[in-house]
Amino acid sequence: MAQKPSIPKGTRDFSPSEVAKRNFIMQTIREQFEKFGFQPIETPSFENSETLMGKYGDEGDRLIFKILNSGDFLKKANQEAFDQKDSLKITSSISEKALRYDLTVPFARYVVQHRNELEFPFKRYQIQPVWRADRPQKGRFREFFQCDADVVGSDSLWQEVEFVQLYDAVFSSLGLKGVTIKMNNRKVLSGFAEVIGESDKLIDFTVALDKLDKIGEDGVKKEMQEKGISSEAIEKIQRVFDLHGSFSEKIEVLKDILATSEIGKKGIEELEFINNALAELGLYEANLDLDVTLARGLNYYTGAIFEVSAPKGVAMGSIGGGGRYDDLTGIFGMSGVSGVGISFGLDRIYLVLEELDLFPETVAGNVRVLFINFGNKESLYCLKAIKALRAAGIAAELYPEEAKMKKQMNHANKREIPFVVLAGTKEIEDGQFTLKDMKSGEQSTVNLQELKEKIGS
Amino acid sequence: MAQKPSIPKGTRDFSPSEVAKRNFIMQTIREQFEKFGFQPIETPSFENSETLMGKYGDEGDRLIFKILNSGDFLKKANQEAFDQKDSLKITSSISEKALRYDLTVPFARYVVQHRNELEFPFKRYQIQPVWRADRPQKGRFREFFQCDADVVGSDSLWQEVEFVQLYDAVFSSLGLKGVTIKMNNRKVLSGFAEVIGESDKLIDFTVALDKLDKIGEDGVKKEMQEKGISSEAIEKIQRVFDLHGSFSEKIEVLKDILATSEIGKKGIEELEFINNALAELGLYEANLDLDVTLARGLNYYTGAIFEVSAPKGVAMGSIGGGGRYDDLTGIFGMSGVSGVGISFGLDRIYLVLEELDLFPETVAGNVRVLFINFGNKESLYCLKAIKALRAAGIAAELYPEEAKMKKQMNHANKREIPFVVLAGTKEIEDGQFTLKDMKSGEQSTVNLQELKEKIGS
Repeated sequence: MAQKPSIPKGTRDFSPSEVAKRNFIMQTIREQFEKFGFQPIETPSFENSETLMGKYGDEGDRLIFKILNSGDFLKKANQEAFDQKDSLKITSSISEKALRYDLTVPFARYVVQHRNELEFPFKRYQIQPVWRADRPQKGRFREFFQCDADVVGSDSLWQEVEFVQLYDAVFSSLGLKGVTIKMNNRKVLSGFAEVIGESDKLIDFTVALDKLDKIGEDGVKKEMQEKGISSEAIEKIQRVFDLHGSFSEKIEVLKDILATSEIGKKGIEELEFINNALAELGLYEANLDLDVTLARGLNYYTGAIFEVSAPKGVAMGSIGGGGRYDDLTGIFGMSGVSGVGISFGLDRIYLVLEELDLFPETVAGNVRVLFINFGNKESLYCLKAIKALRAAGIAAELYPEEAKMKKQMNHANKREIPFVVLAGTKEIEDGQFTLKDMKSGEQSTVNLQELKEKIGS
Repeated sequence: MAQKPSIPKGTRDFSPSEVAKRNFIMQTIREQFEKFGFQPIETPSFENSETLMGKYGDEGDRLIFKILNSGDFLKKANQEAFDQKDSLKITSSISEKALRYDLTVPFARYVVQHRNELEFPFKRYQIQPVWRADRPQKGRFREFFQCDADVVGSDSLWQEVEFVQLYDAVFSSLGLKGVTIKMNNRKVLSGFAEVIGESDKLIDFTVALDKLDKIGEDGVKKEMQEKGISSEAIEKIQRVFDLHGSFSEKIEVLKDILATSEIGKKGIEELEFINNALAELGLYEANLDLDVTLARGLNYYTGAIFEVSAPKGVAMGSIGGGGRYDDLTGIFGMSGVSGVGISFGLDRIYLVLEELDLFPETVAGNVRVLFINFGNKESLYCLKAIKALRAAGIAAELYPEEAKMKKQMNHANKREIPFVVLAGTKEIEDGQFTLKDMKSGEQSTVNLQELKEKIGS
């Protein structure tokens, strides 16, 4: 292979500093998940195709990566499909496994498969990669990590309260101030459709409303009309477009708008409960807002809907989202299991922290000190000190070869190692080390204990 | 789907306690890697097929999981292969990507692709899953994690010294005493073949010798003879079968056996250098041994060969291995890059720690305290305390529903949560909490500060 090797489009190599930063985010999220009582599970990278296919719609089916059966797979291929050279039709007969497309369906499968071992309510988190054969573009990859936390087996609204607290705790721990946790409720959206007499057009209605940010009030109204919602109907909820003020103020207006809708009132009641509890408990850094245009895969959610937006001034889509779904496991024949969950958008959070320069300097986990190699006798002397430093938790290493001094110093520079130790005959005799601070250029002669103290900080 | 869902054979779901234990091992390894100056990289789960195919032999090619192209893949299928219904031949035309089979070839690809950004010697570690379409059996899976550390761009034997220290540091940190790090050197094996005049039968010779543990001395000799190695030749290295004593004692005997072989003497010199350095530096818990029967994928290694065996009394194959290879990146057109690396067998280490009961009790990361739910007012009171506990780093949660007391207590029991808090009207009035130790059954009334202290330990 003469040409330079490459990786498949839409995938990424991560360099040491990128891995360190990603781990920092994941570790922060993991710690908060655990403080909130969520437990980790992991599921296989590939599932039986029948577990995944048909769960994400036709488009989803198309975007699922399929794994070719091993051995003489054509032997068992569907003959008719083979004769017709029908790729779509032949797939299920030559591919029995497929790569995970998200973490939700595998979680549902897990819950059903292990139902007898699990204690409900079951709070699980999962941080694993997923794969989608999407067209790659800026910020959209074919392999990316999802970070999900869900509770199944409880209808309690305290879960929703906890998820807002969890978002707040994670983003505050990451040093990311000023995120906004937006909430809505599917029942409020149903209420809108009801009061305008267009319950059968709920989806069209909310899909249009969801675009308010992008296409403005006139654009939304135009789209609604195109979908057959009359301007008289739209007029009835004009106040929805004019909503402003605090969460509580919006609630008061909504109570009035939805006064005639039982389901709408239920939605408001839920939102009010959550808002009141959080007002009592307080949030660290995040803002909580009510956004009635929020829909996020409406077919999926049945109650609360969450979405987190980055601090003002950072151009970035949502950095997290989730909601309540009444029937997670029905697709696998286990009904009546209500769930609610949220996820964190790792790649976008990474970009936001990078843009705001919020990664701690120490995150790179770089080596603290490089020992210069002056030969075998000196190296052995150095390695004794290195062993002691490592035992004290300090990352340290010996340059492996007796190369020219300049080359070794350059190595330390390029790797941004903050300290260098030089130990030759004189130092060995005295049981000392010459320590050089690579930033200030300062040199000092120290013993092992002083060495530990100076570079350990 | 009426039937209970399942996962593909050879794959695993990991429960919360399994994930916690696996993370404990990986985190311990990661910390030592970093103390030794290794930096993390991550590569995509799938590579272009041409990157992987042909790198692991025919058997390897067969065991690589191939990903079916998206869309109308049959349209671009090799017509001849299609007409002949030849699965093997058609594969490359309908599958352009394949799942990672190990971490070494992707690492070689990474080094070549990023050669201009890397500073050599480059010390990298990588902890990621790999996939093999092997027949699943006890302890062998189709998806499993590899944990590798390698240095490329240096011939220095100090690297070998460091890898022995690294193994020692990791297993000592895991509390696993009495592992044996076995070393050999490809050059010593070449020397044996040379002194018996059978250099062209090096592979047959070492493959047979590698089985000494399993089939005994007579078995090995029989196999050698079957491969055409004369009994006179075998006689010349009879002393190889009789080797015993310490590392240094074996070295002395080998010097004599290999006195006429330049390459053999070079191998001994390398082993002696490593052994002497380690004798000076000392190991924490591991034993170092010289095992001339060790071969481990001989075609691959060119110098040092490592293998780690579990403590005596634990029936388990090797829990780690590695060695030096002179030409890692030649397969991608970049020659002259010497490397040396080791890997840790995560699944087997897990089984050994489980068998010896060495996982720390705290590893599960379980919630420390469950607050009983007596209603909304009480829950709000509890959530304030829970918020304070979490801020102090203590995992705590509220039972989400006002269920019967017995049900809530059962929940705490089943999840093995060590403490339960009961806070009703009386406690709220007094600003107190009733704390129950689930193990001893003891109850006490405490304020928030005392609560933190009692359950935080």
